[in-house]
Amino acid sequence: MSSRELGDEISKSRIETLTDGVFAIVMTLLVLEIAVPQLSHSEVAAELTKELLELWPVLLSYATSFIILGFFWIAHDDQFHYIKRANRILLWITIFYLMFVAFVPFSTSLIGEYRDQQISVIIYGINISIVGFWEYVLWRYATKDHHLVDSDLDPTFITRVSKRFLLGPTIYLIAVAISFVSTQVSLVLFIATPLYFLVSARKDKSWFWFTKNK
Amino acid sequence: MSSRELGDEISKSRIETLTDGVFAIVMTLLVLEIAVPQLSHSEVAAELTKELLELWPVLLSYATSFIILGFFWIAHDDQFHYIKRANRILLWITIFYLMFVAFVPFSTSLIGEYRDQQISVIIYGINISIVGFWEYVLWRYATKDHHLVDSDLDPTFITRVSKRFLLGPTIYLIAVAISFVSTQVSLVLFIATPLYFLVSARKDKSWFWFTKNK
Amino acid sequence: MSSRELGDEISKSRIETLTDGVFAIVMTLLVLEIAVPQLSHSEVAAELTKELLELWPVLLSYATSFIILGFFWIAHDDQFHYIKRANRILLWITIFYLMFVAFVPFSTSLIGEYRDQQISVIIYGINISIVGFWEYVLWRYATKDHHLVDSDLDPTFITRVSKRFLLGPTIYLIAVAISFVSTQVSLVLFIATPLYFLVSARKDKSWFWFTKNK
Amino acid sequence: MSSRELGDEISKSRIETLTDGVFAIVMTLLVLEIAVPQLSHSEVAAELTKELLELWPVLLSYATSFIILGFFWIAHDDQFHYIKRANRILLWITIFYLMFVAFVPFSTSLIGEYRDQQISVIIYGINISIVGFWEYVLWRYATKDHHLVDSDLDPTFITRVSKRFLLGPTIYLIAVAISFVSTQVSLVLFIATPLYFLVSARKDKSWFWFTKNK
Repeated sequence: MSSRELGDEISKSRIETLTDGVFAIVMTLLVLEIAVPQLSHSEVAAELTKELLELWPVLLSYATSFIILGFFWIAHDDQFHYIKRANRILLWITIFYLMFVAFVPFSTSLIGEYRDQQISVIIYGINISIVGFWEYVLWRYATKDHHLVDSDLDPTFITRVSKRFLLGPTIYLIAVAISFVSTQVSLVLFIATPLYFLVSARKDKSWFWFTKNK
Repeated sequence: MSSRELGDEISKSRIETLTDGVFAIVMTLLVLEIAVPQLSHSEVAAELTKELLELWPVLLSYATSFIILGFFWIAHDDQFHYIKRANRILLWITIFYLMFVAFVPFSTSLIGEYRDQQISVIIYGINISIVGFWEYVLWRYATKDHHLVDSDLDPTFITRVSKRFLLGPTIYLIAVAISFVSTQVSLVLFIATPLYFLVSARKDKSWFWFTKNK
Repeated sequence: MSSRELGDEISKSRIETLTDGVFAIVMTLLVLEIAVPQLSHSEVAAELTKELLELWPVLLSYATSFIILGFFWIAHDDQFHYIKRANRILLWITIFYLMFVAFVPFSTSLIGEYRDQQISVIIYGINISIVGFWEYVLWRYATKDHHLVDSDLDPTFITRVSKRFLLGPTIYLIAVAISFVSTQVSLVLFIATPLYFLVSARKDKSWFWFTKNK
Repeated sequence: MSSRELGDEISKSRIETLTDGVFAIVMTLLVLEIAVPQLSHSEVAAELTKELLELWPVLLSYATSFIILGFFWIAHDDQFHYIKRANRILLWITIFYLMFVAFVPFSTSLIGEYRDQQISVIIYGINISIVGFWEYVLWRYATKDHHLVDSDLDPTFITRVSKRFLLGPTIYLIAVAISFVSTQVSLVLFIATPLYFLVSARKDKSWFWFTKNK
């Protein structure tokens, strides 16, 4: 009996290690996509600064993705504050969740390079939405019948958090829909959403601000 | 005496950290192999979507390898639920195991690019089989005379798990053999096997479903 | 109550895991930027040694960044010796801190390739300064009203450490300012500063030497 | 007092996390250096197998470096079984140690590509020697006056282990020296040494076999 519980504890800690590992790598790989300009000796003095300044859209997509990944990582951290046990299905939800987290450098690189193309906006937005959606699934699964959280966890709290987890993916899907009208507006939404959450979080009412600082 | 046991405990935890680290990196590198199409300014509008759609075999091999690695990682997690102590030989089995895990991005990239070539199918299939086989070796070694697991672990259970660990490599070797007749069928087997296990796992009877959820 | 404290403990340990992961990757990626010279079969014998010797500025920037990152990692380790609790804002400070840590391979690669260009010196110096500055912010935030450190931590000690955390960024910003006169002097400062701290640290009086060895 | 000891414990665990992280990445990056052959559609059928077979020296250097890194990792694991406390100097020895560990993918790639050039042999051999030498330094520092190990650790044991730590670097430096006569012999030594240790380790008398299995 007690050995089974120990086993579950271990699983939970290894889910965290794998997740933290993937996030650390993905966050670092984002910047790996930014290539140092290759210039011949004669061009360097005249061109380098100009070429570096032209990197701004890549830098902006880097910073945006980094902050969005920050949100996801913190949300995962929050969930696992309440999730006390792990089981096989939770491991598989994690694998699929990480599959789309690991895809973020590709879609970030795509939107960084072809930000005026609707297909980039669609792929980026859907990628981010799916990551957020898997966190929602993870939370729903873990809290269903309270089987992986404490049995006295407030059901109202569980529902409120569930709704908050859907908010992000919803906004990103709206941004994708808007891309059929204007990709510019979609891009602004991608960048503004995490900034808005960051600022509003300071007032203790954002969706990711639900756990420890109340 | 007690310091020796502590040492073994530490070893076990570091095996887990190294393994989780390698898995996290390998899973993330899989997607790094997928390059964003490089197009000139005039081509972009016409070509980008088409070029992205042509990435589907690469994406499929990415997803397949990710899920297969997911199986291996979960199986490793399972084993280390029962393995209580580590020793030098276990460390070395881990090193050789990880050597073939770290090779998966190469063989995935190979099969993604040249999926119609038998040599790709052979290399991919053998790579995956060897990873699975090392997990089998690890389990056999750890359970032999119960010297790294609890002394009261059911021998029937040990044997049943051993057989299950051989199932995966066996199927992948059959897929390799089939490649001499049809590489297409081999590819279908590579993709269908993890999907089958995933679905059947839900019914609690798959080979990796042996530990906690019974 | 006790579950909230446990949650904070977990957060702290996951901040450490994510930070250690990002540092491990960034340190390793630094050397990934160093490409093995590509030579045709006929050139190899005559050219390889020469080409490898020409890598020295890249190697020097690699070693310099590695040591600077070493300082930051050790300083982070020190901070978290005193920081006992984590909260949401600390998580976000960490995310932004890591965002600039993850940028170091880019700016290292830039200064390795174009060390005679002022823009490289400016970007590198500012990058390093910001990393140091976030560590200062992290320390200031955590020690404010002692809310994330032990309540009896000596205020004089807190202030002294704060000042030390500002020393590094200040020197690097001075190096940036000097680049308007001479980029050579800036480069010497980048390399000499960590070396000076390393040597003076042995005498127990450097800014990072504040915790355990007194 | 007790908080100081706790701090040292934390440091030790973070040294392990950083080291395991760097090893996991370096081991995985080794294979990243192996590029999938790029062939045009018409060449594939005729050329792919041939091109893959020509990768054997790269694969051999990959496997050799992986096993050598395995030895270093296991040796580090052994050391930290006996090292009970960490301090600042130990952190810095770790940073310099990891600096040369992180360099292994470069020198492996170099020797894989230009194995017939003496300069490759020299760089590879010196790189590996320095890694081993830092492990020796780490052990010597930690055991000096028993200040980071248990006070009752047998001095004879400490000396025997020290000598064993010097054995690896010594052999690799001899291989480097031999390269002035024949690079072929050096290469054989690089590959044979870890294999010899692996086999002899089974008889419980190798230099890395000093801890738990006696």
